[in-house]
Amino acid sequence: MKLTILGCNAATPRKNAQTTAQLLEIKGQMVLIDCGEGTQLQLRKLRVKFARIQHIFISHLHGDHFYGLIGLISTLRLLGRSADLHVYGPKGIKEIITLQLKLAKSWTDYKLYFHELDSTHSEMVLDHEKFTVETLPLDHRVYTNGYLFREKMGPRKINQTAVATHGVSISDMENLKQGKDISLENGKTIENHRLTLDPATPKSYAFCSDTAYLPSLAQLVKGVSCLYHEATFLDTHQDLALKTKHSTAAEAARIAAAGEVGQLILGHFSSRYPDLDEFIAQAQQHFKNVELAEDGKQFLIA
Amino acid sequence: MKLTILGCNAATPRKNAQTTAQLLEIKGQMVLIDCGEGTQLQLRKLRVKFARIQHIFISHLHGDHFYGLIGLISTLRLLGRSADLHVYGPKGIKEIITLQLKLAKSWTDYKLYFHELDSTHSEMVLDHEKFTVETLPLDHRVYTNGYLFREKMGPRKINQTAVATHGVSISDMENLKQGKDISLENGKTIENHRLTLDPATPKSYAFCSDTAYLPSLAQLVKGVSCLYHEATFLDTHQDLALKTKHSTAAEAARIAAAGEVGQLILGHFSSRYPDLDEFIAQAQQHFKNVELAEDGKQFLIA
Repeated sequence: MKLTILGCNAATPRKNAQTTAQLLEIKGQMVLIDCGEGTQLQLRKLRVKFARIQHIFISHLHGDHFYGLIGLISTLRLLGRSADLHVYGPKGIKEIITLQLKLAKSWTDYKLYFHELDSTHSEMVLDHEKFTVETLPLDHRVYTNGYLFREKMGPRKINQTAVATHGVSISDMENLKQGKDISLENGKTIENHRLTLDPATPKSYAFCSDTAYLPSLAQLVKGVSCLYHEATFLDTHQDLALKTKHSTAAEAARIAAAGEVGQLILGHFSSRYPDLDEFIAQAQQHFKNVELAEDGKQFLIA
Repeated sequence: MKLTILGCNAATPRKNAQTTAQLLEIKGQMVLIDCGEGTQLQLRKLRVKFARIQHIFISHLHGDHFYGLIGLISTLRLLGRSADLHVYGPKGIKEIITLQLKLAKSWTDYKLYFHELDSTHSEMVLDHEKFTVETLPLDHRVYTNGYLFREKMGPRKINQTAVATHGVSISDMENLKQGKDISLENGKTIENHRLTLDPATPKSYAFCSDTAYLPSLAQLVKGVSCLYHEATFLDTHQDLALKTKHSTAAEAARIAAAGEVGQLILGHFSSRYPDLDEFIAQAQQHFKNVELAEDGKQFLIA
């Protein structure tokens, strides 16, 4: 799983400070998470093939998380896209997008599906052949969801040495990958685990932005490989965090610690902080394996 | 009058190729014309004080001319704006913007006025103390207006030498500027033109994008100091110009020639042309004083 930060800053885009958007490559699929103004330009700069994106997940309808969506949808049309595109987001997102397409007389030639969300409980919104996506209800000023991406377990790996030793035929390989025992020509049955190896452990990624400190979130992200959690403020602005329903770096780290996650990435920094090192320091009081998001930075989730 | 090109490219924003937006400084006032995605970032790069913009004119509801508007309006709110903001544009623009502000629960604290247009005849939409703005109905795939900005004639200029010679009192200066004759203490009347000089000739700027070749436009822009006219295509793609209701460089120049304008600026170039020199060459077959728009470039209209 590979995560690319397209933008990780709060409130408004500024020079060298894009608003929230992330690209997640999961089992060869590309998904986009949030889409602040200018996201299509970030995708171009990083030479991402737009056509590969089939699913877009929008957390909430504040501008710094979705103002770039209409532009991206329009550009995909101009690029001659034919594949379906699925957009997941809060109720209302369909009306915003379709109103603009209608007034511009620019309906997409590709099929555009909206999956509007309004549940306040976690639910599975996508059950893809290779991964699943569940919502993570958050606590913000408007209806907001984080998203939890889980790879599905892959097929078992063939143990080439064991297979050669037992003279297993090529036609049995698919059954072996599926975990089945096989019968040799001499009538003897060999148990699957003697011919195969465990597949790679599935990885998982939880995206949580924007939200007030929400202790119950730890249970929902329990044991994920990687947690992105917003950290708009430092401890000195705890009052602002409460008032605006955002989190501090320490609060994000407390979620990571309680959730026993593999690693923590902090983002959505307020523009009031010229130096971000203090975010690491305050987070590490609670959770050690923490990194800062940065526009254009890539994280391998392994 | 000073014109700054914030973006001048067609269809979709690309690296170093912003979509349409222009900033016009007219008699000390700042107006924004069109607002493609990323315009607020361009304004920041050029260090324009956002707060100075009071009027925004949107030509039509294709994304490359207004997708940046909602972001700019939101950012002005976050920057604590209190002054009124006036937005002029096609019917529907109010619904697009207010729907997004409503769903984000982010109404502006400043007053936001929409002036929705639906007339197919030229009309005056703003009669400011120092300038006027008229619509220029264009011929495009959706309802579209260009805009014509005319400075108002300023006060007459005091002829300092003549005023000193005649011993005119300070209290008469305002009357002189207004063009009135004055009476001296000795009862003698002096005609205004002996004490004042003509003010600078008012300048005018016509913005015309997007549009098919529209010969009748020449009459509406007759004698303007500067005409910006879209030139999406070169002669080789005349068929595309007809089909998509855009203009070629030659057609733009024919409007400039027939309208006897002072200078012509071409813009809204299709991304299919890596070298733009040919736009100048083809335009100059019809009109000599032509320049190409370029992101970040400034033009003094004198």
